[in-house]
This record gives sequence, structure tokens and C-alpha cells, in this order.
Amino acid sequence: RVNGDRLWDSLMDMAKIGPGIAGGNNRQTLTDADAEGRSLFKTWCDEASLTMGVDRMGTMFATRPGTDPDALPVYVGSHLDTQPTGGKYDGVLGVLSALEVVRTMNDLGIKTKHPIVVTNWTNEEGARFAPAMLASGVFAGVHSLDFAYNRRDPEGNLFGDELKRIGWVGDEEVGARKMHAYFEYHIEQGPILEAEDKQIGVVTHCQGLWWLEFTLTGKEAHTGSTPMNMRVNAGLAMSRILEMVQGVAMGEQPGAVGGVGQVFFSPNSRNVLPGKVVFTVDIRSPDKAKLDRMRAKIEAEAPKICDALSVGCSIEAIGHFEPVTFDEKLVTSVRSAAERLGYSHMNIISGAGHDACWAAKVAPATMVMCPCVGGLSHNEAEEISKEWATAGADVLFHAVVETAEI
Amino acid sequence: RVNGDRLWDSLMDMAKIGPGIAGGNNRQTLTDADAEGRSLFKTWCDEASLTMGVDRMGTMFATRPGTDPDALPVYVGSHLDTQPTGGKYDGVLGVLSALEVVRTMNDLGIKTKHPIVVTNWTNEEGARFAPAMLASGVFAGVHSLDFAYNRRDPEGNLFGDELKRIGWVGDEEVGARKMHAYFEYHIEQGPILEAEDKQIGVVTHCQGLWWLEFTLTGKEAHTGSTPMNMRVNAGLAMSRILEMVQGVAMGEQPGAVGGVGQVFFSPNSRNVLPGKVVFTVDIRSPDKAKLDRMRAKIEAEAPKICDALSVGCSIEAIGHFEPVTFDEKLVTSVRSAAERLGYSHMNIISGAGHDACWAAKVAPATMVMCPCVGGLSHNEAEEISKEWATAGADVLFHAVVETAEI
Ligand SMILES: NC(=O)NCCC(=O)O
Ligand SMILES: NC(=O)NCCC(=O)O
Repeated sequence: RVNGDRLWDSLMDMAKIGPGIAGGNNRQTLTDADAEGRSLFKTWCDEASLTMGVDRMGTMFATRPGTDPDALPVYVGSHLDTQPTGGKYDGVLGVLSALEVVRTMNDLGIKTKHPIVVTNWTNEEGARFAPAMLASGVFAGVHSLDFAYNRRDPEGNLFGDELKRIGWVGDEEVGARKMHAYFEYHIEQGPILEAEDKQIGVVTHCQGLWWLEFTLTGKEAHTGSTPMNMRVNAGLAMSRILEMVQGVAMGEQPGAVGGVGQVFFSPNSRNVLPGKVVFTVDIRSPDKAKLDRMRAKIEAEAPKICDALSVGCSIEAIGHFEPVTFDEKLVTSVRSAAERLGYSHMNIISGAGHDACWAAKVAPATMVMCPCVGGLSHNEAEEISKEWATAGADVLFHAVVETAEI
Repeated sequence: RVNGDRLWDSLMDMAKIGPGIAGGNNRQTLTDADAEGRSLFKTWCDEASLTMGVDRMGTMFATRPGTDPDALPVYVGSHLDTQPTGGKYDGVLGVLSALEVVRTMNDLGIKTKHPIVVTNWTNEEGARFAPAMLASGVFAGVHSLDFAYNRRDPEGNLFGDELKRIGWVGDEEVGARKMHAYFEYHIEQGPILEAEDKQIGVVTHCQGLWWLEFTLTGKEAHTGSTPMNMRVNAGLAMSRILEMVQGVAMGEQPGAVGGVGQVFFSPNSRNVLPGKVVFTVDIRSPDKAKLDRMRAKIEAEAPKICDALSVGCSIEAIGHFEPVTFDEKLVTSVRSAAERLGYSHMNIISGAGHDACWAAKVAPATMVMCPCVGGLSHNEAEEISKEWATAGADVLFHAVVETAEI
């Protein structure tokens, strides 16, 4: 079993970096806080005698050697970056539990045939730079390095420039590493495990996603002196599209979601009808047919809504992953570990995207989940108990050691 | 007649300060660009032998003495601040035409019984600090100085601090000055004069306004892993309120408008359902009964919309003025001037709010309007012709000289 107190202390130490405004964290990718978090993590890796490698996307790979020089490593990780108003566990739990796995192996003097690589992927959240899971996407060959370097944050800063600025451009070619297996431990970020009173989620699938970025073009005009019939109201069109997306998602229940988290009005002045409204629709389903049908419906309906208001409408898909089925053997290893340790468990589909979804493209991969209070995540009030954290880390430890072969 | 070329040159010189991104201006109130614009205006006032006074709100009063030491001055002015993506004429035309009036009086050696005071009111636009027409509102006793100083821009800066920072806190008590009359010349900002092919709008009324700032409280949650039936979606509630406001305004046609120019999602991340959405509804009508009915309907409907989604709803009135009827004698003087000069004219109701609306509370006041291309304003593409600008300035000149008495 792992050392739950040590894991928890590390979680609390990391949470001191990039504090939020309501008890959570704002440690967005490639900010100074991210750099500080990386340094602390590196110190811990050094203390655990791991060897650090960094690739050109800034992803950190901390290796514990195996006994067989020819055996490919087992990768275990997640991400240290957070949402602007994120929780203390989303991502962080997975990275620090991977560290706790090797700390425990060190304590117990466990040697494995396959090396173990504790991994911190860059820009998983996609909050500052879209799309999410950017570094693992480049690693899996889904995006080019050039594409990634040219992503911009809302202030216009380039990903490539910011990575250089914080001093974490590594020299490894991205994706050059080959994996024997990839494990990721994460909080559920949804309500199911808590509602079903299970300690462990055995993650069999991850739902697919489309991010559709809308740019609506209206006519900037005075809110007072522009008659109703002369308005080209991009804000009204946006409202109708949000309502339409809600209807489309409701029409595919259960097993589908749709919503909007980000909206920019321009010029965003109280007495100016917006000339431009940019927002991103986020739709997901574990069922590829549903996912693609939702996209098709939205892309068919939105232009009609805009046409009726003479508003210009352009739609760009800025994020996408297909539904993922995780590796059967690894899934079984997670389930057996939970059984063996006496933790209650159930199969679960990940509602969020994870680096494991891209890793699954290039290696056998799976995930372990623990509950979170009220299913709440992407919220500073995100909460888990030390017991929940520890149970999942125990399961991760067993599954990883089994896969890495003693 | 005024010197139209000189007026136009001054307009173009002022437009060089705080250039926009599309040919217009971004000279928002109390920015460095505003300070630069004020300095240029002061230089011109000095050159015209005017005496500058500045009150504690930073409003600039440039006096041309009258012949009767007991006669109250005739004030003529508008504002030099702009929207973030504003035009070159909104406000500026009124201030620089007032200056052109005294320049012409100087050229012609005209002496008047009443002094003339060319006026530049601080923060008319209300874009950076709500409400609009802030300094004239304090002048008219509608707001306290303390209220004004404590307005915040979206970055949290205080009006009082920013006024100090740019060095324009004057020593005059706000509202201490008494006015014989107040004139304001402005572009229409609407389509009527151009459509009716009239050179001059004789402004008889100004429509009233409510700015209702909504703060909707949802639950920040993950867009992927939060089931549809667990969402507390403040963005969806905002959409429904925008649609409802549109319906309320359409139900009061003609003679009413309603819309939303500013929306803030928080935390505004693509994969986070917003925990908070703040936006301002702008409703206007020249008919007080309509205006108040619209407000009542919106305030009755919005909470129902929010309740149905379990979203919290608070509404604060952050801007208001009643419909205004301008002074009959001054209105007649404007109309007669247009007649005398042979300019086509019609009565018009101002769709936008103006400092004249607050001045009307403490003195006889009225306005002159000229057309603008396509009725477009609060848009960098705002355009007028030199001939239109000159015709209005001629009318202003005649009406002001008549009121100031030779
Ligand atoms: N786990 C997580 O929240 N990842 C961010 C990517 C997504 O939106 O699913
Ligand atoms: N004239 C003008 O655009 N003033 C701003 C105040 C308003 O919104 O009417």
C-alpha cells in the first residue's frame, strides 16, 4: 500500500503554488505559477532518484530504471496545470500519485523489469491554449509541433514563446519515446462514483468531443439610437445558438452533453451592440454516432439562426477526439487490483478528456478514478477525501507494478 | 457663418489622438489618450484667449467673457472621450464646434452680454466607468462626487484614482457654476435625418434609459463530466433573458429599444460551465410609461427564467435617466437659426443619452443634431461629411449668439 499521508502532504504543498481566490488553484499552463509547480515537482523527482527528461513540448518524464535494459517503460502520469479557477486535484492527483507509486517502490525496494516513468504533460486543460491535451496530442502524432507552438492565449501570446519564457523547452523529440503501457489516475469530475458509493472507477472508455468555435459578425451600433429593425444583433444570434445547442444535447439523452463555457463580446461596451461575438460550443458523447449527429445538427441550425438576423456565422472545429476504448488487459489489471485490495469499484466512462485518450493511440492505456464531492470539478471548491485519494493510489500502485513486472 | 475647414481640421487633429484599429478612435475616459486629447483642447482654448476652469470631476470649462459682469454664461459643449471602438465625431464634434463658435466670434469681433463657456464633460460614454454622463450627472446633483469617484472600470481601477493619475482633478466644486443656458451639438447616431434628407435635427426630447446589470449565479462545473440534469447553467439563463428582452422591446414597437452590449462569463473557460454571468440590459424609450413597463416586465420575467434553471438572479439598476423635454425657447432658437440659414430641418428625439439631458435638470437646455452615414455610431466606421458638420455648427453659432445676446 502507498503512503496516503505523504501523498496528501504533497498535494497540499503543490496547492500552495498558484493559489486561487476561493481555496482552489490558478496555475494555468506556461504561467510563472506553472514554472514554480514544475520546479517543486522536479525537486521531488530528484529526491526519489528519478532521471528527468523533457521534450520540446515541455512534458516532463521522470524515470525509475527497470532491470531489463530492453524493456519499454510503463508511463504513469497526468498534468499539473489547472483551470483559471480550478481545483487542487484535477490532474495533480494523477502526477503526485504516480510519484507516490515510485516513492513506495523505493521504500519497499521493489525492482521491476520495465522502467517506470512519472509524467507531467504540458497544457492538458486547454484553458489558456486550446485545444486541451495539447502535448499528449503532439506526442501521439495528432498535432504537429508547429501547430502547438502557434496556439495563442486570449491575450495573443504564443504557446511556443511562453514555453521558452518559463524555461521549459526540452531537447527530446516529441513522441520519440515508446511506451509499454500508460496509466492515468484522475478524480472522476462527475457525480457517479459518489452516488453509487464506490471507491474506485475502472475506466473502460472516454467519451469523444468536439469544440466548435463560432465567430458571429453583427454590426457595431448604438444601443439607444439604433432602431430594432436596423440591428444586426450578433448577441441575440449567440443566445439563440446556445438555446439550440441545449435542445440538441437534450434530444440525445442519455449519453450526451452540450454547452458553452466561453463567450467574448466585442467591443463589450454596455451601449454598443456587439460587432463580433466569439464562443465555443463543447459537445461530447461516448457514442460516436451521437457525437457526430450533434455536430451536424448544430452546424445545420446555427447558420439558419444567423441568417434570420442577417448575422454572419463562421464555425471552426478547434478541438476534437473520438470516443476511446481503453486496453482490455490494463482495465482488467485495474479491476483486479481493486478486488485484491478490497475497494468497492464499478466500470465507468470518463466524461472529461485526458492525456490517456491520446496515449491510447500509441500504447495500451487505461485510467483509474476516485470520486469527488458532488461531482464538482473545474471549480475551486473541488474536493476529495484523503481516503479516496489513497484508495485510488493503492490501485494504481498495484496495477502499475503488475504491468511493470517484478 | 463658421469656418467649416477649420472645424474639420481640428476634428482630424483630435482624431490622431487615441487612434482605433479601424479608422476610428479609442480615447476612453481617463486614459493617457484622454489626457493627451485634453491637452490639445486646452492649447486650442488658450489660443482662442479662453480662461480654463476645471472642476473636481475633471470637466473642463473654457470661458469667453461677456460684457455684463452679472450675466450667467451660456454653456456649449459635449465630450472628448470615446467608446473603445468609437468614431471620430461622437462627442468631439460638439466640443470642437463650441470652440469653433468662439473662434468665429473672435474673428468677427462679436461681443455678447453673457459669457460663453466651451465645455468638455468627463466620462460621457460610460464605456469604461458606468454610468454614462457621469460628470454632468454629478454637476446636476443626480450623483454624489463620492459615488463617481468610486466607480470601477472592468480592471477594478477607481474613477477617482484614474482622474488623479492623468492629472485632471480640478479645484472647482462640481455644480457650483450656474448656467443661463446649455447647448449641445451632436451627430444623430441614428438613421432618421439621413433617411429624411434633412441637414439639421431640432432636438425636442431625449428618450429615457435604464441600465439593468444582471448577475446570474450558476455552478462552475466541467462541461464534459457534468450530466445535463445536474447543470446550473447561468449561460443558458443569460441566453433566455436576452431573448426575453428582445421580445419585450418588440412588444413596445415603435418607440422603444432593448438590447445587451456587454457580457462577462466567469471563469470564461471553454470546458467550464460559467459560475457567474454578468451582463447589462439597455432599454430606452421617449415614453416614460413604456420605459417603466419594459423594466417591470424584464424584472418580472428574468427571475422566472432563472428559477426554472436553479440559477441565482440579481438585478441592479446601474444607469437611469428619465425622458427629457428640452427648453421650448432654446428649441425655437435652434429651429429659427436653421430657417434663417436655409438649412433643411426636422424635429427629432435623441435616441442616445447626452450631457444635455442632465444639464436640462439645472438650466434651460437643448441640442442640435446633424446626420451620420447609415445612422452608424459606436462604431469606428462612424462617418459624417464636412458639409453636415458645418451646417450644424452654423446653427449652433446662431442659436448661441442669439441666446448670449449681442
Ligand atoms: N480532465 C480535464 O478536465 N481535462 C480537460 C479537458 C476536457 O475538457 O475534458
Ligand atoms: N451619445 C452617446 O453615445 N452617449 C453615451 C450614452 C448613451 O448610451 O446614450
